Parts: sequence; structure tokens; C-alpha cells
Amino acid sequence: MQVTAPLQLYEPVAYSLEGGGKRIRPVLMLHAASLFSEHPETLFPAATAIELFHNFTLLHDDIMDHASIRRGLPAVHLKYGQNSAILSGDAMSIMAFRYLSRCKVSEPAPLLNLFSTTALEVCEGQQYDMEFEKRDQVSITEYLAMIRLKTAVLIACSLKMGAMLAGADEKSCRLLYDFGILTGIAFQLQDDWLDVYGEENSFGKQIGGDICENKKTYILLKAIEMSDQKTRSHLQEWMGRKNFDQKEKIEAVRKIFTESGASAATRTLMKEYHDLALESLQQLRIEDSSKKELREFAAKVLSREK
Amino acid sequence: MQVTAPLQLYEPVAYSLEGGGKRIRPVLMLHAASLFSEHPETLFPAATAIELFHNFTLLHDDIMDHASIRRGLPAVHLKYGQNSAILSGDAMSIMAFRYLSRCKVSEPAPLLNLFSTTALEVCEGQQYDMEFEKRDQVSITEYLAMIRLKTAVLIACSLKMGAMLAGADEKSCRLLYDFGILTGIAFQLQDDWLDVYGEENSFGKQIGGDICENKKTYILLKAIEMSDQKTRSHLQEWMGRKNFDQKEKIEAVRKIFTESGASAATRTLMKEYHDLALESLQQLRIEDSSKKELREFAAKVLSREK
Repeated sequence: MQVTAPLQLYEPVAYSLEGGGKRIRPVLMLHAASLFSEHPETLFPAATAIELFHNFTLLHDDIMDHASIRRGLPAVHLKYGQNSAILSGDAMSIMAFRYLSRCKVSEPAPLLNLFSTTALEVCEGQQYDMEFEKRDQVSITEYLAMIRLKTAVLIACSLKMGAMLAGADEKSCRLLYDFGILTGIAFQLQDDWLDVYGEENSFGKQIGGDICENKKTYILLKAIEMSDQKTRSHLQEWMGRKNFDQKEKIEAVRKIFTESGASAATRTLMKEYHDLALESLQQLRIEDSSKKELREFAAKVLSREK
Repeated sequence: MQVTAPLQLYEPVAYSLEGGGKRIRPVLMLHAASLFSEHPETLFPAATAIELFHNFTLLHDDIMDHASIRRGLPAVHLKYGQNSAILSGDAMSIMAFRYLSRCKVSEPAPLLNLFSTTALEVCEGQQYDMEFEKRDQVSITEYLAMIRLKTAVLIACSLKMGAMLAGADEKSCRLLYDFGILTGIAFQLQDDWLDVYGEENSFGKQIGGDICENKKTYILLKAIEMSDQKTRSHLQEWMGRKNFDQKEKIEAVRKIFTESGASAATRTLMKEYHDLALESLQQLRIEDSSKKELREFAAKVLSREK
């Protein structure tokens, strides 16, 4: 990425984007568009917009969550300082809208409306996520609503924007949006699961972070629900400890997650979202063979290790 | 303002907007539009967008600058906490773009492009502002370029957007933009001057804040330039002190600003920008009487006390 002046504003932007990531959202946009058009020329600005926006949310979330590592590298606020992280994030969000304004479409309003509504929902999701940390009780329904906002809507938006830019009809746009929501929730459930069972090297984040922070993920909420009295007390005791050996706590809680059946229940729920996602895809009036990439994506969400 | 869920995201937004402010940007947009059209129906979303964006920048700047008071009230990050201030600011910036996408114009791209380019310039201005704080030397040229980005471009953008939405020709748009840049720089110079000579009650901000922080404003840079050796040493001695009585420092530095002629020089420069702004306005091929409000605004910039 070419970095222009002021360097201290745009260097963190480049650092954040060059850290890599899976580029899932632009790729999904491309797949969705290719279902309807051979050459959706308007994709590049929109794909850039969505990836910029996603990375902006990671950057600001890392400040709010005091996260130290992102994609195996120091988080922006640690490398460049908090003020730079705030301001460079602001710039990325604005750059996203600037790219979007360059989309050559006859009707830009619906596209902008979808993107800005989604962007606001992502903020709402982050707000709920932070609130849930401070609350004693979070229901599974609330948790799923939160990850829908925080993660799934941007994935759904990528797909729908790809379809819109390729001139798809409204029903197809809606079906792809639904596919995105369902796959996106499964994606986040897998993310939470990998935080417990993943390999640090391939995941790129610290394993067990959620456990150490007592994050009320589906797997934890399910473990509380499914455990017998004794195990639940044991779990709550770990959650109540102020001073603990991180490794010890992670291992103990992981064991409860496995033995209570919460881990298996998480995988079952993911499979249910996956199957519902495929049903949405099924309803798309498009030749089945064209849907291969999206089916593979949905499958990979369940098997990914990073 | 109606506050929807999640409350903790939208309450700080409402608090920030209900704090008041002069609404200069929407008012200027209205004045600019009324030069060309009786009923510019598309103004409301654009005016809301610009006011939201402006308040977003204040909110995030206050975090970065550790400012405690805004418009006589506790700054958002003090009232709601830093994370809420970051996230609610993010939401406001996105809401600005969402409002903008609702403008009913035949060609939204130029409008969006102007707004997003301006928004990015405002971030660049804030970055330079923060950098200058850490630097030993800042030239007057650099300072003026910084306040152009940080303050003037958004005022210029408001005027140009108003003209664009009212169907003005390109030359008129450019002249109003120039008027905005020139008046905007005068506006910031007056802001800096009021920080030294204003009344705390009417200004709504702590007086002397810039002096306490050795902020390299035009008036300080000019005082360094215009002082004799002895006074300059005296000024630099005050700037070098780590521990000082705030009131004492403010009074001593204010005296140097006055006696060195830096205060008068600031007022002279403001007048020059004011006169250049009026020249731009003069060139507008519109009946002179219609320009009354904009002329009055330019005059008020120089005489305002808040």
C-alpha cells in the first residue's frame, strides 16, 4: 500500500491491512457477484470498502478490548499508541465510505444504505459485547443476537452487495443475505470454539483468552447450562478467582467444556446454522454447480483452524 | 433525539448532540443553498450529516487530547467512559454517511466524494495537530496548513455541499468553498485567540488551556518571532516549567502575547483572511443583497466571544 502524508496517520492503516487476514468478505462478495455476472466491474471499490471497514472494526475493538495481538503481530494501539489507533481507525472507516462512493452503479443509494446500516449494526454488536462482559447473566438468545450484529451482518452485507452490484433480483439478494447471516453466526461460533481448542500458531490469536476473561460465549453459557451442580460450582469457582495461573485455568475450563458436552453442543449448533445456510443457498434460482464456492465456504467455516 | 437500543451506544450520541454548539456548519449550508434555490429539499440529510460528523470529531478529539470539558459539560469520555466514547463516535461517523446517502440528488457521487475527502482531511488535520504537540519547532506555514485541514475544510465543505444541493454551477461551488476555507482559518485563529483572551463562561471551554499545554498556536509562534531576546527567554522559561501555578502561567504568557504584539498580529491576520473571504464572495455572480448572511457570518467570526 502506498502511504501518503501524514505518515503517522496512514502507516497504521497500512500496517493493519498488511497484517493479512483471510479477506473472507471481499472473496464472498466476488463469489456472490459471479453468480449473476461474468464481469462485475464495480466490485473493486466495494470489496476494498468492506475489507477496510472490517479492519477498522478490528483496530478499534482491540483498543476497547485491550487486545495485544492481532494476526500474530502487536495490535495497532500497542505499536503506534492509542491516539494513532483511534485516529487511523477513524480514517479507515471514512476511507471505506470513500471507496464505496466510487462504485459505478446506476442507483448508489440502496448500496450505501445497506453498507451504512450494516456498519451501525456492527457498532451495536460491539456495544452489546462490551456490556455482556460487565453483566452477570447473559442468555444464549442474547449472545446469538450479539454475534449476529458483531460478525454475521458484515458477512451477509458482503454477499448481498456482491449480488446487488452484479444486478441480482431482490429475492436472490435476500437469500444470499440470509446465507451470510447463518454462515456468519456459525463462523463466530467456530471462532469462539477455536479460542478454546485451536492451535495458537495457526489461529494467530492467544488461545484461551476468552476463558481467562470469563467471556460469556455460547460454549461457556452452554457449559453452565449442561453441567451438574458440582461441575457448575467448579466452573464458577474458576470464574470467580482473581488470581490464577492462566494455563491452569484454561486447561481446567476446557476440560469442563469438553466433559459437560458444551463443546459438542457448540459443534451441533454450528452444524444447524450450516444446514440452514445451505437451505437458503438451495432456494437461489441458479444452476447448482455455480454455488460450489459458497457451499465450500460454508463447509470450511466448520472445519477451519484459523 | 430519540434514543434506541443499545442505550449505551446511542445515549452518548444524544448527549453529544444535545450539548448544543453553534450549528455553524448546517446554518452555512442553508445560507449557501438559499443563494441558488428557494427550497433545497435535500438539505436536511446533508445538514444532519455534517453536524453529526463535526460532533464525532469533537468527541474523538476530546479523548485524544484528554479534554475534560466540552460546551460547559463533562466530555463524553469522562461521562460515559473511554470505550463508549470511541464506539459512539464511530457510530456518529457512520450515521453521518447514512444521512448523506439519503440525499435525494440525481448525482450523489460528487457529494459523497467531497464529504469523504473532507472527512479524511479533518483526520489528517487532527494527526498534524497531535504531531505538532510533540515537536520542538513548528512553522507558521505548517500551523496554518494544519488548521486548514482540521477546521476550515469542513466549513468549506458545508458551504459547497449546500451550493451543490441547490444546483449551483461549478465556479460558484468553488468560490463558496474558498470563502469557507478563508473564513474557516479566521474562525480557528479566533478560537485560539479566545483561548487566551475569552471569558470562560461564554466560551464554554477552559480559558488558557493552550497556554498551559504550550500549544503551538499562531499567537504563540508569532510571540516567539516578535519578542525581544529577553522576553523570548522569559516565554521559553515558562514553557519549560514542569510545575507551575496555572493561573500564574496563563497571566504571564498572556501579558507577553499582548506586549509582544502577537495578539494584534493575530487579529491582523484574521482580518486579512476575512478580506480575502469577502473577495471570493464578491466574485459570486449573484445579487449582492443575497450575500448578506454570509458577509455577516464572516464579520461575526472576527467579533465572536464564543
